[in-house]
Amino acid sequence: MNSTDIRLDITKIPKSRIDAVDFENLQFGKQHADHMMYCDFIDGEWQTPKIVPYGPMQFEPSAKVFHYGQAVFEGMKAFKDEEDKVWLFRPEQNFQRINKSSKRMAIPEFPESHFFASLEALLKLDKDWVRKGGGNSLYIRPFVIATESGVSASESDRYRFMIITCPAQAYYSKPIKVIFAQDYSRAADGGVGFAKAAGNYGAQFYPTKLAKEKGLDQIIWTDASSHEYLEEAGTMNIFFRVGDKLFTAPTNDRILDGVTRKSIIQLAKDKNVEVVVDKVSVKQIVEAAKSGELKEIFGTGTAAAIVRVEGFEHDDVYYDLPDIEEPYGTFFKKNLQDIQYNRVEDTHGWTRQVI
Amino acid sequence: MNSTDIRLDITKIPKSRIDAVDFENLQFGKQHADHMMYCDFIDGEWQTPKIVPYGPMQFEPSAKVFHYGQAVFEGMKAFKDEEDKVWLFRPEQNFQRINKSSKRMAIPEFPESHFFASLEALLKLDKDWVRKGGGNSLYIRPFVIATESGVSASESDRYRFMIITCPAQAYYSKPIKVIFAQDYSRAADGGVGFAKAAGNYGAQFYPTKLAKEKGLDQIIWTDASSHEYLEEAGTMNIFFRVGDKLFTAPTNDRILDGVTRKSIIQLAKDKNVEVVVDKVSVKQIVEAAKSGELKEIFGTGTAAAIVRVEGFEHDDVYYDLPDIEEPYGTFFKKNLQDIQYNRVEDTHGWTRQVI
Ligand SMILES: Cc1ncc(COP(=O)(O)O)c(C=O)c1O
Ligand SMILES: Cc1ncc(COP(=O)(O)O)c(C=O)c1O
Repeated sequence: MNSTDIRLDITKIPKSRIDAVDFENLQFGKQHADHMMYCDFIDGEWQTPKIVPYGPMQFEPSAKVFHYGQAVFEGMKAFKDEEDKVWLFRPEQNFQRINKSSKRMAIPEFPESHFFASLEALLKLDKDWVRKGGGNSLYIRPFVIATESGVSASESDRYRFMIITCPAQAYYSKPIKVIFAQDYSRAADGGVGFAKAAGNYGAQFYPTKLAKEKGLDQIIWTDASSHEYLEEAGTMNIFFRVGDKLFTAPTNDRILDGVTRKSIIQLAKDKNVEVVVDKVSVKQIVEAAKSGELKEIFGTGTAAAIVRVEGFEHDDVYYDLPDIEEPYGTFFKKNLQDIQYNRVEDTHGWTRQVI
Repeated sequence: MNSTDIRLDITKIPKSRIDAVDFENLQFGKQHADHMMYCDFIDGEWQTPKIVPYGPMQFEPSAKVFHYGQAVFEGMKAFKDEEDKVWLFRPEQNFQRINKSSKRMAIPEFPESHFFASLEALLKLDKDWVRKGGGNSLYIRPFVIATESGVSASESDRYRFMIITCPAQAYYSKPIKVIFAQDYSRAADGGVGFAKAAGNYGAQFYPTKLAKEKGLDQIIWTDASSHEYLEEAGTMNIFFRVGDKLFTAPTNDRILDGVTRKSIIQLAKDKNVEVVVDKVSVKQIVEAAKSGELKEIFGTGTAAAIVRVEGFEHDDVYYDLPDIEEPYGTFFKKNLQDIQYNRVEDTHGWTRQVI
């Protein structure tokens, strides 16, 4: 990772803001640790990454990000173990994915050395913001935005890569109610659904608001052409347990290739739980719900780890999921978090110590 | 329009920057007139619109627009006639459309009175930036961005509505070569294609870059499910002339309902040119190209008015369009611009004088 060779410009905060933060009552994504990283792409090159105190920045109102949504992001977490060591979970996956997203959005890829050197420096500076235990973590948000000034619809020639961080407690902790999409869609074939492109998210807020008005928490998106196949939720991949098997959709150009999803598939294999990675039809799930064979639905994602779905609506019918004993969701969540918090041996080499 | 009742906060530029601008060599969207308008949505209400000198502004790096692309925009123009009167073209269409876009992106709608009062005040201040004749205009870019600070994927509770302007010469003046999309897509059924949502544009840059590498200028998007029907270009609706009839796709939830498109449909009717508004299949157009019945393809949009397509590629075959005499494209472009520049009587009540 030869991250040590990279020059960074670091300006430390004069006095930490940490004492003003109530870590027992965090609102997700609202508080920011003391520092942030930014690195500009100018004249065809990524410049020296800078670490500075978190705070507002100046942008041109004509910056392309505001007009054309040329922007991508990532979400990852740092975890602190009982010995105050700080760990990242499969960070190379996020690094590769942001570049995959960038490529699709015509954004220049970011160098691996810049990414890891600045991320590590940032975490070292803000290590006190990573809290131990109980679902606590430091949420890390790398993102890239188009900063060229000019309102013509073509790719920018300037970009800013940034990393900001937010202390986080357990997110989405209670079970959620979902609806299977029948009118709206998240992504087109040949579109940008597989990328963490900013616009994919804003486009979901209105349909999600409509779902909330019906008393549901989130939408499970289906394929845009037929609405017959279940794909993923707004910020989570989705698993269905029918009998003792887990089912999840294969990733494609509409679906985000989630790090948590692939980790759960692996953990399930480790425990000899069969995972069928194949198209999951609405029909099959509705029938399994009716016959009682559908035991669980859960979502997987960095922010939430695993979230239990307690029921779903389809065709105006609401299906309650049973409250089973020893759900896979709970089991694999613990299994995953034990690795993330360095409580068990990491046989897959997924974690990376930064401090 | 009772725009006179609206309070505006106006801060004028100490000295105009206009003398530094070379109006003969404008790069589209790069220069900005002296002033801009912004209006914040805070605590559930649009505040007093402010007009200030154009310049950079401070934003939180965690502002939702950067992460979730919750942003929409419009594009319209002001034209100056020979008597120095300044005209807008169907501005109520842009006003209605930005609110339609906003609704789909879960952004609060902007009040009509705020919109017109501030737009008129802005144009009055910057009237010297609207140049007469020869395809000159002042391009007007209203846009709305989500400004709440917080990296959780849900709609913002703060927004900024802005209007910036750019002096413009004729845009895309030369004929273009296009390719009919076969791999990538612009919009999903049930998605946000009909909205001028920022993310729709950034998502096109990469496929367009690939098209440019093949020597083509733009993509004509097809429906995402089958790629069999021609929909629209990146920033233009598309018309096909087969024999003496014009064909254009009906608008739907994937296609932007262009103001120029609907104006051309009306102007064609006025001149007894038949316009068939129905699905346009790739097959039909390729066959018409082969048989010689395909006379013209042109794009329509505010930035460019009408742009001639000189040829298209499909299935790796490039089809040249004939160089016919008296093309509809040229005819209707003149017809439209005569109305926009107040050179002929506006029988449809489309133009609106602002100065
Ligand atoms: C659309 C979407 N699906 C799934 C996920 C889950 O991915 P991961 O497990 O890598 O966080 C996310 C969150 O990043 C997402 O945004
Ligand atoms: C996707 C798209 N289609 C078509 C158009 C043309 O619309 P209008 O004629 O209103 O400018 C635009 C430009 O605004 C556009 O962005």
